Amino acid sequence: MPKLMILSRDGDEYQRLVESAQLPALELTSDPEASDIVLGEPKLIRDALPRLSTLKWAQSIYAGVEPLVDPAQRRDYILTNARDVFGEAMSEYVFGYILFQEKKILERIRTQQAKQWQRPESGVLRGKTIGLLGVGSIGAHLADTAKHFRMRVRGFTRASETSTQVDKYYHPSPRPSPNGRGSLIEFAEGLDYLVSVLPRTKDTNQIVDANLLNVLPPQAVFINVGRGNAVDEPALAKALSEARLAAAVLDVFEKEPLPANHPFWTTPNLYMTFHTSAISYPEDMTELFIENYRLYIEDKPLKHQVDFERGY
Amino acid sequence: MPKLMILSRDGDEYQRLVESAQLPALELTSDPEASDIVLGEPKLIRDALPRLSTLKWAQSIYAGVEPLVDPAQRRDYILTNARDVFGEAMSEYVFGYILFQEKKILERIRTQQAKQWQRPESGVLRGKTIGLLGVGSIGAHLADTAKHFRMRVRGFTRASETSTQVDKYYHPSPRPSPNGRGSLIEFAEGLDYLVSVLPRTKDTNQIVDANLLNVLPPQAVFINVGRGNAVDEPALAKALSEARLAAAVLDVFEKEPLPANHPFWTTPNLYMTFHTSAISYPEDMTELFIENYRLYIEDKPLKHQVDFERGY
Repeated sequence: MPKLMILSRDGDEYQRLVESAQLPALELTSDPEASDIVLGEPKLIRDALPRLSTLKWAQSIYAGVEPLVDPAQRRDYILTNARDVFGEAMSEYVFGYILFQEKKILERIRTQQAKQWQRPESGVLRGKTIGLLGVGSIGAHLADTAKHFRMRVRGFTRASETSTQVDKYYHPSPRPSPNGRGSLIEFAEGLDYLVSVLPRTKDTNQIVDANLLNVLPPQAVFINVGRGNAVDEPALAKALSEARLAAAVLDVFEKEPLPANHPFWTTPNLYMTFHTSAISYPEDMTELFIENYRLYIEDKPLKHQVDFERGY
Repeated sequence: MPKLMILSRDGDEYQRLVESAQLPALELTSDPEASDIVLGEPKLIRDALPRLSTLKWAQSIYAGVEPLVDPAQRRDYILTNARDVFGEAMSEYVFGYILFQEKKILERIRTQQAKQWQRPESGVLRGKTIGLLGVGSIGAHLADTAKHFRMRVRGFTRASETSTQVDKYYHPSPRPSPNGRGSLIEFAEGLDYLVSVLPRTKDTNQIVDANLLNVLPPQAVFINVGRGNAVDEPALAKALSEARLAAAVLDVFEKEPLPANHPFWTTPNLYMTFHTSAISYPEDMTELFIENYRLYIEDKPLKHQVDFERGY
């Protein structure tokens, strides 16, 4: 008899949703020693790991599972994470800020406050180029929306080329090309918008560094909805302060909450939101859990299994 | 031999574009008495009308042709206007402001300025309802984008039902339904976003009045990218001041430029832009002109002919 323990701040809601699904054979339990399945936040699951002695499968309700892929933790169970459920909200967030920038909404608010009938010319997305650092399910969703607005789309991935909405893919090359520029630099050159959706892994540290920021044109906007480790934060603050970049939008940071003395609090043309670009909806997550539960009881491979070594 | 006179502030650019198209038989002229075709802004064409003694066809580079459909003016020529060229820019403008509102971008900017790590919850467009007052080519484009974001779409039109992206159409009814509520009110009830793209005609005056604003829920946002005559401006200012509406975004006004003493300058939660939601691109317009010119020399019906009586 499979026994599920829910480990979430939204525990009551998950319990209600799971119970109303009336899943075959499933029992809910609050005893970690008795449960073979857990559903919840990675941090809460990690804290419970020592007592989850019969754990076989953990379903994370987040995409990022850093606390669980930490090498200090056990890896003797199947870990699945949330995917395909954030694309929509992420796309709204990213294009909300892209249009905010392109349509000069803040400039127009200031014109209005000055009681001036002025008509700053705004741009259009059609024909502009967006570069996606990472094209998993979220990146693919961003590519769809970019194409809806008739943008050109570049994608930088380790190897995969799953989204057909990406016009051109770039992958890490073993060594720089003859002109001395790696494929990451070629990917970034001339972009109007650079968006990172990269997970935190050992390979993604400081991918967005001074070299990469240097090849972006001055009208470019950088948006990070992935993880903070991908950014060389001092280099980004410097580029913005020197107006070598039009703006940046950050939802994630190397250290969260952002320390009170961090230079970002006073960096110009930087829009910060605080890890809210996409929230996990219990309804969506329960749907994914139910799908995986049916596979679990039939002993079939689960969806969105995390590779502990790779980290996502 | 067809003779074209260009009457536009962007005259040089139009001349360059038309010349480079090398249209068969076409001659450019600066003599109004000699020209049978004009291309340009409605106001400039109207001013030239008395001297355009051999005019057969006028191509407006704007969608709105009020100066030319004015009953005091001649109507002895074919008038075509710009359509299908504004949908993209309008859609970017409208969804820029919709996402600005939904993602609480201004609230987040203020949180950041206060150096607070706070996470106000933002909404998602999926499942929200948008109502389009007018579903011509611009409205159809808005419906496409709304569906991309998985919104519900209602359309209010005189009679047409051309866009298949509209979930439900409403049309003016000869008299109110048994419950005393007209179809316009039924269309507006419960909308999250109400967008007017209506042209200025005698039938569109003050369609958005106190009665209609009263049935919008308090979280609703009204956006006007059509014409200012569609709005009862004092009623809108009152609804916003009493917070019976979350916000309004206006690109057009009854009187433009907006008078210095207009209450809108101090109305809360009102975002104003000044007739800039979509600009006319000479490239797009020249493409339309070329298409129509080929029909013209073959004596075929032109695209986007204006009905002088109807006004669009």
